[in-house]
Amino acid sequence: MATYVEETTYVRSGMYNWEGDAWSFDKKGPYIELVTSPNNPDGTIRETVVNRPDDEEAKVIHDFAYYWPHYTPITRRQDHDIMLFTFSKITGHAGSRIGWALVKDKEVAKKMVGYIIVNSIGVSKESQVRTAKILNVLKETCKSESESENFFKYGREMMKDRWEKLREVVKESDAFTLPKYPEAFCNYFGKSLESYPAFAWLGTKEETDLASELRRHKVLCRAGERCGSDKKHVRVSMLSREDDFNAFLERLANMKAH
Amino acid sequence: MATYVEETTYVRSGMYNWEGDAWSFDKKGPYIELVTSPNNPDGTIRETVVNRPDDEEAKVIHDFAYYWPHYTPITRRQDHDIMLFTFSKITGHAGSRIGWALVKDKEVAKKMVGYIIVNSIGVSKESQVRTAKILNVLKETCKSESESENFFKYGREMMKDRWEKLREVVKESDAFTLPKYPEAFCNYFGKSLESYPAFAWLGTKEETDLASELRRHKVLCRAGERCGSDKKHVRVSMLSREDDFNAFLERLANMKAH
Repeated sequence: MATYVEETTYVRSGMYNWEGDAWSFDKKGPYIELVTSPNNPDGTIRETVVNRPDDEEAKVIHDFAYYWPHYTPITRRQDHDIMLFTFSKITGHAGSRIGWALVKDKEVAKKMVGYIIVNSIGVSKESQVRTAKILNVLKETCKSESESENFFKYGREMMKDRWEKLREVVKESDAFTLPKYPEAFCNYFGKSLESYPAFAWLGTKEETDLASELRRHKVLCRAGERCGSDKKHVRVSMLSREDDFNAFLERLANMKAH
Repeated sequence: MATYVEETTYVRSGMYNWEGDAWSFDKKGPYIELVTSPNNPDGTIRETVVNRPDDEEAKVIHDFAYYWPHYTPITRRQDHDIMLFTFSKITGHAGSRIGWALVKDKEVAKKMVGYIIVNSIGVSKESQVRTAKILNVLKETCKSESESENFFKYGREMMKDRWEKLREVVKESDAFTLPKYPEAFCNYFGKSLESYPAFAWLGTKEETDLASELRRHKVLCRAGERCGSDKKHVRVSMLSREDDFNAFLERLANMKAH
């Protein structure tokens, strides 16, 4: 019975509203800003844009779901008040439904734990056990210099290879666009590196509904409009299985002929 | 970004309020009644009490978390609009955080799926795989007549043994009370059986704060007040490990001496 009471109170919370894009936020009073860096869908590195460091009622949450060295240069040790991480994107184990947070304010951390308790009592023990095991294996592989054994080196080469192939097709076609990412020094790899995001933010040079166009060529992706953008952009996964990715490249290459 | 929008909308829902005990509910208009049967904490069999079968806006949710043959006689094939089940109480795998529902109305089922998607996207795959495996093994054991091999027979004997020991201590002490449960015909076992609930709803005959009294004797339990009852009752788990359960019996037996 106690659980039902809490659950009811919990979903009734009217304490906050979604205010839209942080770039256009100019209201006074308390707010929470979500910084997704690298950003989904376009893979760009983001910083706070509302930026009111002296406002004690301001909260910034950094979502570092994609901040891993196979996707993006690890340029610095991040040091923010609330930092979210997930097991989903490191290794593709999204189905384990597990993540973690680094939080400086003890009271905020307590509230987050309280939320989890009301939301689901806790994360599945099976997921916890399996994730801990995989993270440990991952850590062990980091000791290796070998590209086939070191998980992040392997992942980076894989992502690099896919991005290079995709950029080649896009260049050949002259119908599409892809974002360019600045090189940056990666502290994990100890050298300057490019970004190879988990999603390609694909655009078209023509005045067309790109998602529908791609669907006609049997390529499924998320329409730009669903990502807060326009019809000329789509989000394509760069993490599909090898066969699927190659089929995607082939179909995309065929589209210029039409 | 899409997820954050939905999450925000979801926790803002002010669509329903907790109205307290169904016995005292007399408001007009739409309502949702939760029937927990067997009931936690007292193990009694419950039916709807608001009982407005002709009210199209009325919804009844039956929670059958404890409706398993090692706890209670399975008196009939339940046939209600919304029936909830959990893997937690059959085998004690609460940590897997997994349950299921039987729902007649397709639209209600869709909303429940929608809730899960916003709440957690879905249940951990590790839990799904492990639970499916365990349920299958459980089903296989049901073919056996052996008390050590048939899971529910084994569980029932275990519960019976513990309840008999507890009732013996309570009888000897003359300081405590326990509920009595009617015998009923169990379709699973094919005979008339008693209930052996997962929790003992322990009461005291004296005017005392039972939870505090027990804590002084190193017995931890949930206070009756936290279960919507009074200080003279507590909820004690009957599912602890063998050593813990025996220590509980011993400490309870010692309490009469004080």
